[in-house]
Amino acid sequence: MIKAGIVGGTGYTGVELLRLLAGHAQVELQVITSRSEVGMSVANMFPNLRGKVALSFSEPDMDALAQCDVVFYATPHGVAMKGAGELLARGIKVIDLGADFRIRDIPTWEQWYGMTHTAPELAAEAVYGLPEVNREAIKQARLIACPGCYPTAVQLGFMPLLEQGLVDKNHLIADAKSGVSGAGRKASVGTLMCEAAESMKAYAVSGHRHLPEIRQGLVQMAGADVALTFVPHLTPMIRGIHATLYATLSHDVDLQALYEQRYEAEPFVDVMPAGAHPETRSVKGANQCRIAIHRPGGGDTVVVLSVIDNLVKGAAGQALQNMNILFGLDERAGLETIALLP
Amino acid sequence: MIKAGIVGGTGYTGVELLRLLAGHAQVELQVITSRSEVGMSVANMFPNLRGKVALSFSEPDMDALAQCDVVFYATPHGVAMKGAGELLARGIKVIDLGADFRIRDIPTWEQWYGMTHTAPELAAEAVYGLPEVNREAIKQARLIACPGCYPTAVQLGFMPLLEQGLVDKNHLIADAKSGVSGAGRKASVGTLMCEAAESMKAYAVSGHRHLPEIRQGLVQMAGADVALTFVPHLTPMIRGIHATLYATLSHDVDLQALYEQRYEAEPFVDVMPAGAHPETRSVKGANQCRIAIHRPGGGDTVVVLSVIDNLVKGAAGQALQNMNILFGLDERAGLETIALLP
Amino acid sequence: MIKAGIVGGTGYTGVELLRLLAGHAQVELQVITSRSEVGMSVANMFPNLRGKVALSFSEPDMDALAQCDVVFYATPHGVAMKGAGELLARGIKVIDLGADFRIRDIPTWEQWYGMTHTAPELAAEAVYGLPEVNREAIKQARLIACPGCYPTAVQLGFMPLLEQGLVDKNHLIADAKSGVSGAGRKASVGTLMCEAAESMKAYAVSGHRHLPEIRQGLVQMAGADVALTFVPHLTPMIRGIHATLYATLSHDVDLQALYEQRYEAEPFVDVMPAGAHPETRSVKGANQCRIAIHRPGGGDTVVVLSVIDNLVKGAAGQALQNMNILFGLDERAGLETIALLP
Amino acid sequence: MIKAGIVGGTGYTGVELLRLLAGHAQVELQVITSRSEVGMSVANMFPNLRGKVALSFSEPDMDALAQCDVVFYATPHGVAMKGAGELLARGIKVIDLGADFRIRDIPTWEQWYGMTHTAPELAAEAVYGLPEVNREAIKQARLIACPGCYPTAVQLGFMPLLEQGLVDKNHLIADAKSGVSGAGRKASVGTLMCEAAESMKAYAVSGHRHLPEIRQGLVQMAGADVALTFVPHLTPMIRGIHATLYATLSHDVDLQALYEQRYEAEPFVDVMPAGAHPETRSVKGANQCRIAIHRPGGGDTVVVLSVIDNLVKGAAGQALQNMNILFGLDERAGLETIALLP
Repeated sequence: MIKAGIVGGTGYTGVELLRLLAGHAQVELQVITSRSEVGMSVANMFPNLRGKVALSFSEPDMDALAQCDVVFYATPHGVAMKGAGELLARGIKVIDLGADFRIRDIPTWEQWYGMTHTAPELAAEAVYGLPEVNREAIKQARLIACPGCYPTAVQLGFMPLLEQGLVDKNHLIADAKSGVSGAGRKASVGTLMCEAAESMKAYAVSGHRHLPEIRQGLVQMAGADVALTFVPHLTPMIRGIHATLYATLSHDVDLQALYEQRYEAEPFVDVMPAGAHPETRSVKGANQCRIAIHRPGGGDTVVVLSVIDNLVKGAAGQALQNMNILFGLDERAGLETIALLP
Repeated sequence: MIKAGIVGGTGYTGVELLRLLAGHAQVELQVITSRSEVGMSVANMFPNLRGKVALSFSEPDMDALAQCDVVFYATPHGVAMKGAGELLARGIKVIDLGADFRIRDIPTWEQWYGMTHTAPELAAEAVYGLPEVNREAIKQARLIACPGCYPTAVQLGFMPLLEQGLVDKNHLIADAKSGVSGAGRKASVGTLMCEAAESMKAYAVSGHRHLPEIRQGLVQMAGADVALTFVPHLTPMIRGIHATLYATLSHDVDLQALYEQRYEAEPFVDVMPAGAHPETRSVKGANQCRIAIHRPGGGDTVVVLSVIDNLVKGAAGQALQNMNILFGLDERAGLETIALLP
Repeated sequence: MIKAGIVGGTGYTGVELLRLLAGHAQVELQVITSRSEVGMSVANMFPNLRGKVALSFSEPDMDALAQCDVVFYATPHGVAMKGAGELLARGIKVIDLGADFRIRDIPTWEQWYGMTHTAPELAAEAVYGLPEVNREAIKQARLIACPGCYPTAVQLGFMPLLEQGLVDKNHLIADAKSGVSGAGRKASVGTLMCEAAESMKAYAVSGHRHLPEIRQGLVQMAGADVALTFVPHLTPMIRGIHATLYATLSHDVDLQALYEQRYEAEPFVDVMPAGAHPETRSVKGANQCRIAIHRPGGGDTVVVLSVIDNLVKGAAGQALQNMNILFGLDERAGLETIALLP
Repeated sequence: MIKAGIVGGTGYTGVELLRLLAGHAQVELQVITSRSEVGMSVANMFPNLRGKVALSFSEPDMDALAQCDVVFYATPHGVAMKGAGELLARGIKVIDLGADFRIRDIPTWEQWYGMTHTAPELAAEAVYGLPEVNREAIKQARLIACPGCYPTAVQLGFMPLLEQGLVDKNHLIADAKSGVSGAGRKASVGTLMCEAAESMKAYAVSGHRHLPEIRQGLVQMAGADVALTFVPHLTPMIRGIHATLYATLSHDVDLQALYEQRYEAEPFVDVMPAGAHPETRSVKGANQCRIAIHRPGGGDTVVVLSVIDNLVKGAAGQALQNMNILFGLDERAGLETIALLP
């Protein structure tokens, strides 16, 4: 039985992690901390967990966390980089669902996140937890940086094309649509139901924090620099990311076969049949990425459709997938839940 | 391993039954039939089931169904009453998610459903599958009539009051709000997104098919006639029923204690703390009924709030719960899924 | 040309008032104040007003407001009672969309709103702005207290029954469903899209601030005390209130004719044909209350369905209707907008 | 007073046209026909029109229509091309909201719409009703082909770039997101609330009927051939199109100034300030296109954000705008309605 702790956990990635951990037969949640909600029963805050999670939020306490085998950080950026070092030193594995260790280049991180990074050596050590890229490294890791939600959908969508050098790397476009839960559970006017429902808008077109993270991943795949235009959109739904990716083909190739082969052994990437249109609801609540490839009119533009649940394959589910790999469990353990449709 | 078959299964109770069965370790789905979709892969119709359900819809065929231990009917009314008899005769248990065997009084059934009942003897034999009322009878049954969605929420909400004779039986009110999935998956203008989203309306105020079913159950609980006003409302959400029940107290009693005791041993009824307001999202995807009891201003009006997921505790989940009881399994088997929130 | 000012106006009743005033040919908006948004262009905050409203929010300033013929308060409770006195003294008409002057009994007001009332003499003078009840008094008023949204829907629904003394006054029930905009535009977790969409819940069952206001109105109609159970529900839509009202008939009467006669001359109350089910979307954006009356099964329970747009007939539209009456304009001026459907 | 008739009118463009015509002071609706709904009161089908439109649907009848000054076709493709000729011959102006006369190349039309075109001479005569392009021709026209919804948003977004020859014409991308009302009001499973809400998907990536229409317009603007990748997405909202357009700049230019100048005199195109993100809700119910231009990171990719209400500027509003031009009225008449927000 793996003993797990959670730091943070009052947000949407937190409640999703709690849901998934509660259904994982080989993990026992020992402690969950929250500076702001000390003493509050988890099930009072998240009524879906009534009868499933008996813990209350406790004061952040390194000694309590150090009793665990693994600690998840489900916190805003800037928190994990302060605590992870001590946990690692005490022999605990750390999986960060936040952004602290995703970007290797510290000045870039500091520019986009607007603060000084206090643990650059950990950022250097951390393994980027995209199993489809880094499975072997994850097995050996002490510290995992779980990818962001957009980066997961976009990287999995572009990967086979870039690895094989099949497209113009100077004009990649990712038009991404995210459900509102991607903005988190903090009180704000912009994500009120009355602001976000029944409307569609792009945001952060001039630059989004996930852009350098995605670019870092694409550069690694391509083995060369890439130019990416990334336009996120706030979509009137709770969960889901639909990334629509555009690239100009420089070589002719059987795209369907390419993707099917690349993801053949991947338990959580589903390459759909030619001509398909994946729906975000087909992955709602499931740790799954579904991809379809199109080449409209047989021209030189390839269109990749990539969908995930931002809270699962884009956050908590991927974190658990990393944990399974890290501890040598079946990678699918606790992640077999089927998407809720309708 | 219990071998299961499904007749119908192209609707929302069907896909939900498929999702739950796929996660039930002791059941194997053998066959699923659909007159209209013969040959269609289940996972093509319901993309959440890709990689989880390998079957295709087949022609309704008694011999194939008779290989099963249990057959679920997820069909509109009028279908199960034609096929159940033969299956029972061949020794197969039958669980009907439809309305054919819910009402004992055949003229009443015929009046509300607008057709002749072709198997009144089965309607007489069928056990009404509300485990909180009929658990012992369910254990012995061959044929289960699963309650409707509204009837489940309303009966569980009123039950303790009526069993104890605490309220005026002549003025019961059930104001019920249902998500749109209650109307099924057939093409119709009234349940288009553009008609049903961003709006609220009552419907069938002059009489809804679930009224006689609810009344039958309440009469049994009360041991006397009851007068019920039942007003269903179409609510702009996909899943969930919120029943708000009103009755006039004739006796003073500790309502909170009454409900807690009545449902103490029930695995799927959660009596919330005094003052609580259950949300339908707290049961989304889960086989759970959550109830809260209020007595505003200390007056003689009791208000009971009862929520379920209409497709789970109101349909497919309850069907599986009945199956578990029928076959002597742990009643919770395959039904531990936690609600998806947010 | 009537010169109008608005105090507040950064909330949803504010933007709706702006929309309606911009379409009113006989009114010119002179000034709009907001303590928190001084200098912000109205059209920057509310992009639907780009090209329609050229003003910016200014510092609250009595001298600027005193240049107007009428000042609307679109503020939380506690603001209007501090400023209205001076405006009235300077000869300006005041229309409060907030709660400060709705309740005549000051101790009751103070109990429900949790603060000391600083202008009880104005509360005594204010006319309750429900034109269907108080049209003549409104014509003569200096100070109008616009009804709350729930109170508008519930009072218009019950009125004919209570005026004629046809129902049991001790067991009135109002089961009301409101869109999320009723909770206002302030940042809060409970009204985030991810919390409020795809879910239904009752709230404040033990007591809501609109209860004493509704009761005050019903008592006046009935000429006697009444007992009302009022259960509001948060409904996953932006706009709209659907009030479902229940009462026990004490006399037999042609309910349809009763309602049609009572509202025959009312420009903004539409009694629908017998058997109808009004939808909130049929009044979305329109200053309209639609009502249907049912007597299910011919029993002694009458069910009244009453729908409004909470931001229009429940707030800004009704405020404008009051202004029209107050200034001797056509009561319909600026209020002819047709509901947006779909 | 202009006498208007409508053929069709039971769909969403129909009800929207009815709403707008009812608010147009210089138009009187004389007749509305519907083969399927003869005798049905318009206000019974569309309850927002109760008290606003007194007509009932009548049998299609050329003599009744010929009493009008202008006839709108709000019909599926294939209807207007059969009736328009006779109306034109009898001196009536015809405005088609459908697709029959949008595409000049008849074989292209026949290929995409799957039927023989019965009036190619009218397709040759028809003026494409995008006033921002064809205002002078519209003034002289007898027959107007109103643009489709996607084509309106996409053409207005690309126009200044193509007219000035500033981008690579061989790699234009239009990623467009549409509310569900774009799919019309016919019963179908795919647009049920339970299928379309809480999900996002691309569709028709291999080819959509609006593609040749958009391409025809872009070619005209560019004065040369263009290659366009057009990916429409079904978005979980009722109204609105958000087109996100991508092109590679071949010249350096002040894009903001370019767009502001191009649309300076246009009453219904709003170029937002640099850095803005238009929201579809800012045009909900309004005849408005709002555009913002971005150049992320100062690179060579230009991103244009263009939003409309698909039923207004994308259909009924644009039809009325065309009518105003055709009859020499103020182009804004009846189209001043402000968008409904929230």
